[in-house]
Amino acid sequence: MSQPTESLWVNARLATMDVRHPEAYGAIHDHALWIRGEEIHAILPQEEALAEFGSRGEVIDAVGQWITPGLIDCHTHLVYGGNRAAEWEKRLTGVPYQQIAVEGGGIVSTVNATRDLSQADLSTASLPRLQALMSEGVTTLEIKSGYGLCLYDELKQLRVARSFADNYPVEIATTLLAAHAVPPEFTGRSDEYIYDVISRILPAAASEDLAEAVDVFCESVGFSPAQTRRVFEAAKAHGLRVKGHVEQLSNLHGAALVAEFNGLSADHIEHLDETGIAAMQAAGTVAVLLPGAFYFLRETQKPPVAALRAAGVPMAVSTDLNPGTSPFASIRLAMNQACVLFALTPEEALAGTTRHAAQALGRAATHGQLAEGFVADFLVWNIDHPAEIIYSLGTPLLKQRVFRGSF
Amino acid sequence: MSQPTESLWVNARLATMDVRHPEAYGAIHDHALWIRGEEIHAILPQEEALAEFGSRGEVIDAVGQWITPGLIDCHTHLVYGGNRAAEWEKRLTGVPYQQIAVEGGGIVSTVNATRDLSQADLSTASLPRLQALMSEGVTTLEIKSGYGLCLYDELKQLRVARSFADNYPVEIATTLLAAHAVPPEFTGRSDEYIYDVISRILPAAASEDLAEAVDVFCESVGFSPAQTRRVFEAAKAHGLRVKGHVEQLSNLHGAALVAEFNGLSADHIEHLDETGIAAMQAAGTVAVLLPGAFYFLRETQKPPVAALRAAGVPMAVSTDLNPGTSPFASIRLAMNQACVLFALTPEEALAGTTRHAAQALGRAATHGQLAEGFVADFLVWNIDHPAEIIYSLGTPLLKQRVFRGSF
Ligand SMILES: [Zn+2]
Ligand SMILES: [Zn+2]
Repeated sequence: MSQPTESLWVNARLATMDVRHPEAYGAIHDHALWIRGEEIHAILPQEEALAEFGSRGEVIDAVGQWITPGLIDCHTHLVYGGNRAAEWEKRLTGVPYQQIAVEGGGIVSTVNATRDLSQADLSTASLPRLQALMSEGVTTLEIKSGYGLCLYDELKQLRVARSFADNYPVEIATTLLAAHAVPPEFTGRSDEYIYDVISRILPAAASEDLAEAVDVFCESVGFSPAQTRRVFEAAKAHGLRVKGHVEQLSNLHGAALVAEFNGLSADHIEHLDETGIAAMQAAGTVAVLLPGAFYFLRETQKPPVAALRAAGVPMAVSTDLNPGTSPFASIRLAMNQACVLFALTPEEALAGTTRHAAQALGRAATHGQLAEGFVADFLVWNIDHPAEIIYSLGTPLLKQRVFRGSF
Repeated sequence: MSQPTESLWVNARLATMDVRHPEAYGAIHDHALWIRGEEIHAILPQEEALAEFGSRGEVIDAVGQWITPGLIDCHTHLVYGGNRAAEWEKRLTGVPYQQIAVEGGGIVSTVNATRDLSQADLSTASLPRLQALMSEGVTTLEIKSGYGLCLYDELKQLRVARSFADNYPVEIATTLLAAHAVPPEFTGRSDEYIYDVISRILPAAASEDLAEAVDVFCESVGFSPAQTRRVFEAAKAHGLRVKGHVEQLSNLHGAALVAEFNGLSADHIEHLDETGIAAMQAAGTVAVLLPGAFYFLRETQKPPVAALRAAGVPMAVSTDLNPGTSPFASIRLAMNQACVLFALTPEEALAGTTRHAAQALGRAATHGQLAEGFVADFLVWNIDHPAEIIYSLGTPLLKQRVFRGSF
């Protein structure tokens, strides 16, 4: 058996995002990052590291640049067919929503376009979005289903997502979001559709091991709290974690429901109240902020960032990449929007795509920090200050992307 | 003498942005684009074009894709040293503006960083921003000085801008913005600085032919209308066109002043009133919308888009790329923000970076449209609908960029 590959990264400034280091961004200096195989083996004072490392592998001089953990996008819907640019244009030229719906717009158009594609074509259509995120430094991302809305096409979406991880240097967390909308063939029979989700789609996704978690769009225009509870109970019965699209347009107390099931995250949460915050805090549920949708929909109700901060609820930041409400394949844009629109600090925004995003995906012990025993997913940046990653857009800043120790 | 190179682009959908074609985006179909040398020689029905073109050059099959004019970014400050990420972070963590200024923040920090660089190093520092815009499809852009604030360094900035056009496939319109701020060595003596601008800096820029136009930041925190008038008069005396940063934070009637001098454009104009709109309409002055700064500064006062539209004042859209208020090297982001934040239609946003941006740079007769006799700057896009260019961000959509007939 061959020895694992080893590398030692020296002369870097390490933004570890590890709270054990008190400096902003968990920064530590004059330390070297020792990679063994796919893991961070050690972070040691540089002289000590060099002496111990000897000639075990490659020593890489980062010439004073910053290294951060790989970025994690913990909430995306990036596997879909078609796009909704023409529908968006209609909205901006004043066509009423009702007419757009009659003309086949809205989520149904994406469902039809997604169902119409074979698994291979759906993969081809979605790949540029994945590559855009990867090129910015994303090393782990979540991908939800939710545009199939029937057994065959929900699993097809999840298979596309899983196949990306087999073919590209990226880790994918898959989430079953069959309860995203009522499919056209169940119009007016949402309870029957929920029964289909819990009796057929969810068990199939679980038995084929295609999903880590189950998500529900809990909203007046989505599914009720009672329906959400039924899905969460089914998820629990199949050993899957839960999360929710909750409190985006109104307050149905979905976040508390997610917390009741020890959910990974409550996402959107513009209308979250103090009771919901307390429940999330007690359950360790992450608050996932999605400023792209807030921006694109011209919303005015902002998530309760100050209250979440005060309560110590971890805040993640994600693209929500989807064709209807956030067609933005850029995690740097999402971080910038989180600072500009929601008044996060740049350090909070970066924690939101590293340490806290890892927690939102159930990977708090292995991802999102530069620390011993964590996966060796990290980024070398052409910057003088970590805030530059978030402050500017358009100009590439990534010098090197390392995934599981390979680069 | 060799024949000019010719090419014929067939099977494309042409978004000409030429108002003589009544369809949205000036779209025409079943026509071919005939390029001769650096110009659009003809746009003809495809069969006729193929017969006439014969074997004069290359026939390129655009396989049904869209072609638009090259994008034009008509308001940038992209030549500068340093960045202001750390200052931005301070603001977001609650450090008062006064303290940031005392610690050397604000525009003075960019002036110092720009002065500190040699012309070669300033070019190197600025090039990634130019390349980011070019990679999105920008073929012509404006670059302002304004971070030198003294004879030597203002001309240095303009020389860097001009050298880009010598070395890369891009056209640069340079603008002298010496009246951007009062430099530190003139604190409290702004009239004396204006005298320096009109008696030394502006004449030098004119005599070395380094600027096409002259810009002034007319604002309570910039220069007064009386000072602006003095600069405009000097510009006129030297045969240079004028434009202004006006009505951004308050209404000093700067737009009417620009119009009085037959100015190219009045830029920002969040606080523009009906009198200013009428003056611009009468003078043919373009309204340049800069949503990036509006977004980044969390402004709430929007420019009077509906009134500009009603008055028939052409609206351009630009990045305002600069380190203090719009650190975004993305014209697609600017167009998206113009639609989302200012309620432009996608067609208006694209006109704002083509036909109207050309007019804002005094190039209405040669740039910004696919039409006979115009420069052969154009883009082939991987899209089904022109609105896609503006609707989504992050994913590259450009298939081919043609500059002056070369690709
Ligand atoms: Zn979502
Ligand atoms: Zn400006």
